[in-house]
Amino acid sequence: MKENKITAPKDLINNKSNNEIQRIKDDTLVYALGGLGEVGKNMYCYEHENEIIIIDSGVIFPGDDLLGVDYVIPDYTYLVKNQKKIKALIITHGHEDHIGGIPFLLQSITLKTIYAPRFASAQIRKKLDERRMSKAVKIVEIDSNSTVETTHFTLGFFNTTHSIPDSLGVLINTPNGRIVHTGDFKFDLTPVGSNSDYQKMAYIGQIGVSLLMSDSTNSAVAGFSISEKQVAKSILDIAKKIPGRMIVATFASNVHRVQQILEAAVACNRKLIIFGRSMENVVEIGRNLGTISIAKEHFITADQLNHLPANKVCIVCTGSQGEPLAALSRIANGTHRHIKMHPGDSVIFSSNPIPGNATSVSAVVNKLTRAGANVLVNSPLNSIHTTGHASQDEQKLMLQLIKPDYFMPIHGEYKMLKLHADTAIETGIPKENNLICSNGDVVILRNKQAFISDLRIQTDAIYVDGNDATGLSTAVLRDRRLLADSGLIAVIITIDSRTNKILCKPNIVSRGFVYIRESQTLLKEAELVVYDALRKRMQTRTTFGELKNCVRSALEPFLYKKTNRNPIVIPVILNRKEAMVQSKVYRKTENKKSV
Amino acid sequence: MKENKITAPKDLINNKSNNEIQRIKDDTLVYALGGLGEVGKNMYCYEHENEIIIIDSGVIFPGDDLLGVDYVIPDYTYLVKNQKKIKALIITHGHEDHIGGIPFLLQSITLKTIYAPRFASAQIRKKLDERRMSKAVKIVEIDSNSTVETTHFTLGFFNTTHSIPDSLGVLINTPNGRIVHTGDFKFDLTPVGSNSDYQKMAYIGQIGVSLLMSDSTNSAVAGFSISEKQVAKSILDIAKKIPGRMIVATFASNVHRVQQILEAAVACNRKLIIFGRSMENVVEIGRNLGTISIAKEHFITADQLNHLPANKVCIVCTGSQGEPLAALSRIANGTHRHIKMHPGDSVIFSSNPIPGNATSVSAVVNKLTRAGANVLVNSPLNSIHTTGHASQDEQKLMLQLIKPDYFMPIHGEYKMLKLHADTAIETGIPKENNLICSNGDVVILRNKQAFISDLRIQTDAIYVDGNDATGLSTAVLRDRRLLADSGLIAVIITIDSRTNKILCKPNIVSRGFVYIRESQTLLKEAELVVYDALRKRMQTRTTFGELKNCVRSALEPFLYKKTNRNPIVIPVILNRKEAMVQSKVYRKTENKKSV
Repeated sequence: MKENKITAPKDLINNKSNNEIQRIKDDTLVYALGGLGEVGKNMYCYEHENEIIIIDSGVIFPGDDLLGVDYVIPDYTYLVKNQKKIKALIITHGHEDHIGGIPFLLQSITLKTIYAPRFASAQIRKKLDERRMSKAVKIVEIDSNSTVETTHFTLGFFNTTHSIPDSLGVLINTPNGRIVHTGDFKFDLTPVGSNSDYQKMAYIGQIGVSLLMSDSTNSAVAGFSISEKQVAKSILDIAKKIPGRMIVATFASNVHRVQQILEAAVACNRKLIIFGRSMENVVEIGRNLGTISIAKEHFITADQLNHLPANKVCIVCTGSQGEPLAALSRIANGTHRHIKMHPGDSVIFSSNPIPGNATSVSAVVNKLTRAGANVLVNSPLNSIHTTGHASQDEQKLMLQLIKPDYFMPIHGEYKMLKLHADTAIETGIPKENNLICSNGDVVILRNKQAFISDLRIQTDAIYVDGNDATGLSTAVLRDRRLLADSGLIAVIITIDSRTNKILCKPNIVSRGFVYIRESQTLLKEAELVVYDALRKRMQTRTTFGELKNCVRSALEPFLYKKTNRNPIVIPVILNRKEAMVQSKVYRKTENKKSV
Repeated sequence: MKENKITAPKDLINNKSNNEIQRIKDDTLVYALGGLGEVGKNMYCYEHENEIIIIDSGVIFPGDDLLGVDYVIPDYTYLVKNQKKIKALIITHGHEDHIGGIPFLLQSITLKTIYAPRFASAQIRKKLDERRMSKAVKIVEIDSNSTVETTHFTLGFFNTTHSIPDSLGVLINTPNGRIVHTGDFKFDLTPVGSNSDYQKMAYIGQIGVSLLMSDSTNSAVAGFSISEKQVAKSILDIAKKIPGRMIVATFASNVHRVQQILEAAVACNRKLIIFGRSMENVVEIGRNLGTISIAKEHFITADQLNHLPANKVCIVCTGSQGEPLAALSRIANGTHRHIKMHPGDSVIFSSNPIPGNATSVSAVVNKLTRAGANVLVNSPLNSIHTTGHASQDEQKLMLQLIKPDYFMPIHGEYKMLKLHADTAIETGIPKENNLICSNGDVVILRNKQAFISDLRIQTDAIYVDGNDATGLSTAVLRDRRLLADSGLIAVIITIDSRTNKILCKPNIVSRGFVYIRESQTLLKEAELVVYDALRKRMQTRTTFGELKNCVRSALEPFLYKKTNRNPIVIPVILNRKEAMVQSKVYRKTENKKSV
């Protein structure tokens, strides 16, 4: 259901059956392959005639229901089909939900150039190096003074404040009007690191913007978010009072936060050590780029760590989300190579749990507390963390600076997009000029007017498991869910199809079903149930499919009655006749090979 | 690690090897089989010589990591062994984490009487009726005037306020001093329903209490919680402004809340309908007991629902935690039999998501918003929900009223127990008189002095899956986790152990591993890998176990290299010789049976 939908003139509605989107030649199209109706896998496209500009290429981390899935990425089919049109990929900043999809995208399409700000460039290079893909694409660093020009588009950039250095907003000059794409942003009136380009944004607003596309993550949060300077001050105040070791967990990519924590520790005469690979990477990149500016002498090695007094040590580590393999979880479990918790240690979570991680964070806090540590988590009372996304009043400020004719909330779940549109209406955007879209919806910008068209781009969530970037079918996931719930029973039956006889008793193997010692009798009974059913069935000629159905329909009700569970039943029929023939063939192959 | 542990005199430390706990004859023992270090499966025991009193018998609902597990209950082994000592089960109130374990407990031990307050009694009766167990035990209703007496214990009760009617605290008079067990409580200075017995608690404090055991759920929350009256007022204010249908989701067991919602709706001239089985049950029990006092004429049937104007309807339903099968989820999915969402509908969540349910609640909110509903969730700004558990200031008030010599925080995760102890210290309890325990730790009360002993009661978490109350092994859960992550490969091999020959090509079946169409080539290659490995292995005599290992060690690295995944490999070896023998045996059995 789309709200405020203005149907395009009839001549725009096209022959979709051949999967080719046609439209009036001069229109500019705006659509998302990911990022609308979700927080993650951001990928927004701008298309005019024979040109497509892509902004961001992210992943989304799978929920608990996507068993065994490592990443979720957008469906790139439309881009593959329109490969020739793609002129540039622009990256707004270096978070995984904006750059994590790049390696998968490069497996699907050829891309000449990625334009990315400095910090994101370093991260993308590292990512591609690790996968030996660094030669696949050229990375061009951009900043607020850069311009990217194609035949139809001219792109300019402005600095924004976010929870990672070098975050950019994008001004897209199209033949049909100006579009501002904010990227992820907040306003911080006393920021750490680079400031927002208030003057530039105001100027862009002044010259006139047709469409604003703005970050909706915190649409439900009233007011103005806490400043990073306030967080720095709180952490310093706390650091001064900590009697023993100081251990701080935060998001690795929040480099300015890491810098503030390190500064606070140094101010309290503590030596520094970093635990956790992503944190070590970020500190290395940050030191190379000058974002982290702490002299080398303040850092110690793991060997030195346990020779210093407790009040002379600060450990900055990963694991603020309770990730089971991160440094802090290993510390909490007592399995970290270099450090054990002692009473008197203080652990600070300079972070909030992302919804869905609340229980794992809570488990880590309990373990740390039990080991004697004093644990401090973020609360309205202590300000040891702040968000990187604009709250309602900051969203209003962006709307006031840019003064767009049309507004399209992006980067958020449906409820967030809706609330952001409500906020936009409060600032004076006419209700009908709010465009709440889903991934694949196409907004048409025509002569400075924007509307949601009836066109649709193919979109989907593609599951990546292991190194399989071609996707994972929902059938496989459904099986995993069933296996996870009740396990499996495999039934192996050997028959002779010539004589229509069962050659031996059914062989039953179970995993993840019931405890094996308790199940001995049960499985014996089950074998008899299968045998009886098969015997009856085989009194007449049958197919293998019928035999498999026969096994399932005999066994499933029996097992449910006995255990109240529905394991997956996998019947395997072995035919002796075939077996013999195949065996001969195999022996032949074998001989050939050995020759 | 236990803090503040006072080791008991040596003569108390006993021969634990024979699993018999011995102690000085006159001691009173206090221990928990569940409820310490967790929110759930509450079960606290009081033992003196040949008598055990149990308070509460709860379940805990499993986290996402306990695949396919329905409930988690305490290990009842100690109670089974000491069956003869058990004199009574006392229930403080009717929440599942206090009564949900009763059917499983009754499968393990014989219990003459359960003492429970009125509302809990009705719920327990319903629960036992459903399982045809109502004759297994006598249920005696208790209230604040009741007394339960055994040889060594005299129990009295006092009313508390909680998010369910008829909630009791317990005063336990033991030969070694008085113990107060609060049960779940909050203080609400303007409560709905029954009030807290301030005078009785103060009197108990006056005559002297050795040990207070108090609810720690909200130990991390500062201040005094919002009153239920304030929630009622907020809901009425909102109800007055709702233009269309009013749909409210809340916890079914929060009967007073349900009454307030129904009252607010009736005050706005709305007719009432209840959706969701547990909510229907509770309203029925509530109406029978008089806790729900809304005249019958205000309720309508599902048929009448769609014939009334939208602003004349109020639906109260289950699903406030995003439970996938609850009424509200079905409404959000568009699969509810009686109602479809329309723009103009308002949905109120009079609840907070329990940690771990945040993502499922969020998904329901998104679906409802997308369907056009205006959704209102609890926030500090609107007061449409309040907790049933004491915040820090209420915990302090309890400590001040009871004035105990020793304090034992109960009902909470470790970090909550620790914070509650910190709060107790603030009110004047000496640090060393705080007893932070784990399940199975034994506190000894001897002549009005309490200490944590070195004794241990066997405790564990028992997983209940389906109707299997005997428990589920961790091996089964580990298999489910592996199956969930990468699926399985079953390899069936037929050999002839006499000739040491492979009789046919290995037969490979996979589920939940890779999409079948893509895996054809892969599985063919895998068959060859297995065949080659087996052929080499079988050049000398082998055991079945060795063959299975051979299959695994050949296949696992091959599959990992090809797919980056580690499915469970299940080798099944069929022996032709055995097959023939078994086949004959089977045919004999068959003949016997048919005779």
